[in-house]
Amino acid sequence: MSQNNKMEITILSIFPEMFKIITDYGIIKKAIEKGIVKFNILNLRDFTTDKHKVTDKPGYGGRNGMVMLAEPFFRFYDEYEQRNGCKPYVIIPSPEGKTFNNEIARELSQKEKLVFFCGRYEGIDERVKAIADQEISIGDYVLTGGELPAMVIIEVLLRFVPEVVGSRESVENDSFYNGLLDHSHYTKPAEFRGMKVPEILLSGDHKKIEQFRKKDSLLKTILKRPDLFVNKELSFEDKQLLVEIVQELYQRHV
Amino acid sequence: MSQNNKMEITILSIFPEMFKIITDYGIIKKAIEKGIVKFNILNLRDFTTDKHKVTDKPGYGGRNGMVMLAEPFFRFYDEYEQRNGCKPYVIIPSPEGKTFNNEIARELSQKEKLVFFCGRYEGIDERVKAIADQEISIGDYVLTGGELPAMVIIEVLLRFVPEVVGSRESVENDSFYNGLLDHSHYTKPAEFRGMKVPEILLSGDHKKIEQFRKKDSLLKTILKRPDLFVNKELSFEDKQLLVEIVQELYQRHV
Repeated sequence: MSQNNKMEITILSIFPEMFKIITDYGIIKKAIEKGIVKFNILNLRDFTTDKHKVTDKPGYGGRNGMVMLAEPFFRFYDEYEQRNGCKPYVIIPSPEGKTFNNEIARELSQKEKLVFFCGRYEGIDERVKAIADQEISIGDYVLTGGELPAMVIIEVLLRFVPEVVGSRESVENDSFYNGLLDHSHYTKPAEFRGMKVPEILLSGDHKKIEQFRKKDSLLKTILKRPDLFVNKELSFEDKQLLVEIVQELYQRHV
Repeated sequence: MSQNNKMEITILSIFPEMFKIITDYGIIKKAIEKGIVKFNILNLRDFTTDKHKVTDKPGYGGRNGMVMLAEPFFRFYDEYEQRNGCKPYVIIPSPEGKTFNNEIARELSQKEKLVFFCGRYEGIDERVKAIADQEISIGDYVLTGGELPAMVIIEVLLRFVPEVVGSRESVENDSFYNGLLDHSHYTKPAEFRGMKVPEILLSGDHKKIEQFRKKDSLLKTILKRPDLFVNKELSFEDKQLLVEIVQELYQRHV
């Protein structure tokens, strides 16, 4: 996506009002105001044909709950294709999908248009998957609807769209960006209930601060997410910092 | 938690209005109405002492953004302890936390009271972690605030609180519940744009339907989430179904 193009995100849900919480706050609100992203939040009921605007019926086979009808999703799909002259790129949030991560978010952030189909109840009629490009799972747990996971995916991917996050540096310091957890953050006061901010952060020596933060990231990752650490390519500098970490920890016990 | 007790969930955020989307919809709305769960959604600004109700300041060390102040979180903590006669059980949604899953959700669903601290910007002053019981990450990606992940955690854990989900069976059929993905769901019409619902689901033979669904779950898990499959303990019946799956796939190619 070029920096001048708008990203367009379309959502199909029976609870379109829910999406206010991402469009009305923080960096996404600002991105909409700056014209970087445009949201079309559609009510699935507007794509039904019956009088009662039914979007779900009992599942076949008994002993399970309501299942979202295929028809309204296909009607949206056809209308979209007619209006835009191309098929929509459809994402279904689903526990069966690929597990979401920053890498998938970065790929999605390159697309000009994205469509999210949000299911509720037992899920969407399996046949809708025929028109889905991706099923994405935000993690190994079960939610009540596709709305919250769609919001999570959107919030994460928009951080990778240029100019959405104020300074690029913020994204580059994020956890996982370089395969490590982010370093610790401290603000005023320098001493709070006996707990002091590490002195080096008050020193003004930017080179030393940078090194201290890299060491903090490495140590945190080793202690809290060893699985990330073992998969990371270590630079010469990373290894120098590891030497310091281990020597310092060793000396504490001598 | 006994079935007669209320679960109480307290949230501390600078955007308390965001939480309407979980309290005003679906099963959580019903659980609140039935008195199963009670929400206290608090504005972090109400725990500041200065005139401008400041909740964040620039981080120490430079070259990073705003960091949430420790003070308001500690003030909430002290007040809570005084009022309740016990410390709160505090969860901080954070990319550094343990990776959330159904098992953690089930454990949390046993607690009578839970408190969520939601950060924004670069995160919360590291010293607040001294009063946190758990940091939980909903996945390996970075969000803009703790609000969406807190909602995800709450929605998932409430499914494990008795009587929140209409029929227990719905939870037991959920993806991951028994280490497998959920079976496919279909609703009317039986044929849609040339795609037919598997005939067995229309047969009314509940035993056969049950077997068909178990096979569907096994096959889906093998194809989409082999990592789950290899970690699952296989019962005698699972193995019988695997024999059928492999024999049927083999015969297709003969």
